[in-house]
Amino acid sequence: MSGEPETRGVFIAFEGPEGSGKTTQLGRLAARLEALGQVPLTTKEPGGTAVGERLRALVLDPALRMHPETELLLYAASRAELVASVLKPALAAGRVVLCDRFTGATVAYQGEGRGLPKDWIGVLNARVTGGLKPHLTLLFDLPPEVGLARVARRGARDRLEQAAFAFHERVRRGFLQQAEQDPSWHVLDASRPEEEVAGAVWRLVAPLLRDRGALGR
Amino acid sequence: MSGEPETRGVFIAFEGPEGSGKTTQLGRLAARLEALGQVPLTTKEPGGTAVGERLRALVLDPALRMHPETELLLYAASRAELVASVLKPALAAGRVVLCDRFTGATVAYQGEGRGLPKDWIGVLNARVTGGLKPHLTLLFDLPPEVGLARVARRGARDRLEQAAFAFHERVRRGFLQQAEQDPSWHVLDASRPEEEVAGAVWRLVAPLLRDRGALGR
Repeated sequence: MSGEPETRGVFIAFEGPEGSGKTTQLGRLAARLEALGQVPLTTKEPGGTAVGERLRALVLDPALRMHPETELLLYAASRAELVASVLKPALAAGRVVLCDRFTGATVAYQGEGRGLPKDWIGVLNARVTGGLKPHLTLLFDLPPEVGLARVARRGARDRLEQAAFAFHERVRRGFLQQAEQDPSWHVLDASRPEEEVAGAVWRLVAPLLRDRGALGR
Repeated sequence: MSGEPETRGVFIAFEGPEGSGKTTQLGRLAARLEALGQVPLTTKEPGGTAVGERLRALVLDPALRMHPETELLLYAASRAELVASVLKPALAAGRVVLCDRFTGATVAYQGEGRGLPKDWIGVLNARVTGGLKPHLTLLFDLPPEVGLARVARRGARDRLEQAAFAFHERVRRGFLQQAEQDPSWHVLDASRPEEEVAGAVWRLVAPLLRDRGALGR
């Protein structure tokens, strides 16, 4: 019962295609928050838990073929575990949570990309999140050719990154449609230099954190 | 267009608790069919595919803790892959398919055992099977204490087998309820000697196979 404002959890999702720089930007934001005395929790999908990491290795294994429905259910399983054992406890404890991919990636990749029914993906996402939704979703948007060229320079490619170019076009559309429909999504032009994108991220994130008492005044 | 009756696929599921002898009985039935010139396809859940075997190792790993919802989704993923890549093609080719566990196990273990909502399990099962249902489900029923004593004699225990006795009582009830409600289920007293149970299996299976043209007359 001190005079300090109560700190409530803040949940920010980082979405975008391969090579969009979202993971780099997540790391930069985490470092900036740490410099301000915050201790953000950073995690990723698939993964973020013991079983999630095993599932991540499985879905990204280029040698392992599986049907789209199977893949969808493995992402859902990883998410169920992450929500129950990491995200909900961290948010309940008032932490700032930065998550590399969340439900939006499933809608874009498995829905638009693989063509699985979006109503079914919606049912599954609603069930495994128990209604948990990011306060802010940052979409790092860029043309597939730019992202894929960046990934190619990194060397190793996983199964998703080897998929056809048309697939990546559909995924991009799947991300942009969600941003159009949901006011908690914000689109960033990820083709700009890293420094500029980091500035744009901060201008979106800082007011949200201040509103929710997660930054000093 | 010969005078031979068309052979259509026959799908038989073997359900029951640990130690019920269902796997032994499945092997005996397969051997009996082979002696009669049939080439049955035998498979199991979780497992039966490359990704399914990886998931089997994961859900039965005693060192790996996971939430019930996560476990449910991993069983569903294994089933989606098995249905699409093994069961449907085999049945379309007119094969006799013997499957060690199927949807009934999920209802019993994850529904009654772990307490997950049965309507959600029903939605998930319907989605991953695409409506595929065994022509016959054989339930190898026996009191948990008898099954668990048999399992203890086998030595190694996996995570499910270590669970509490009350859990196994609920699972048994979950199996028996399905047998009461679904006329394609048949309950066998699995506490009897192996030879007697095998005879009871054959008396249920032979007429079905004859009806569907999968046994000579």
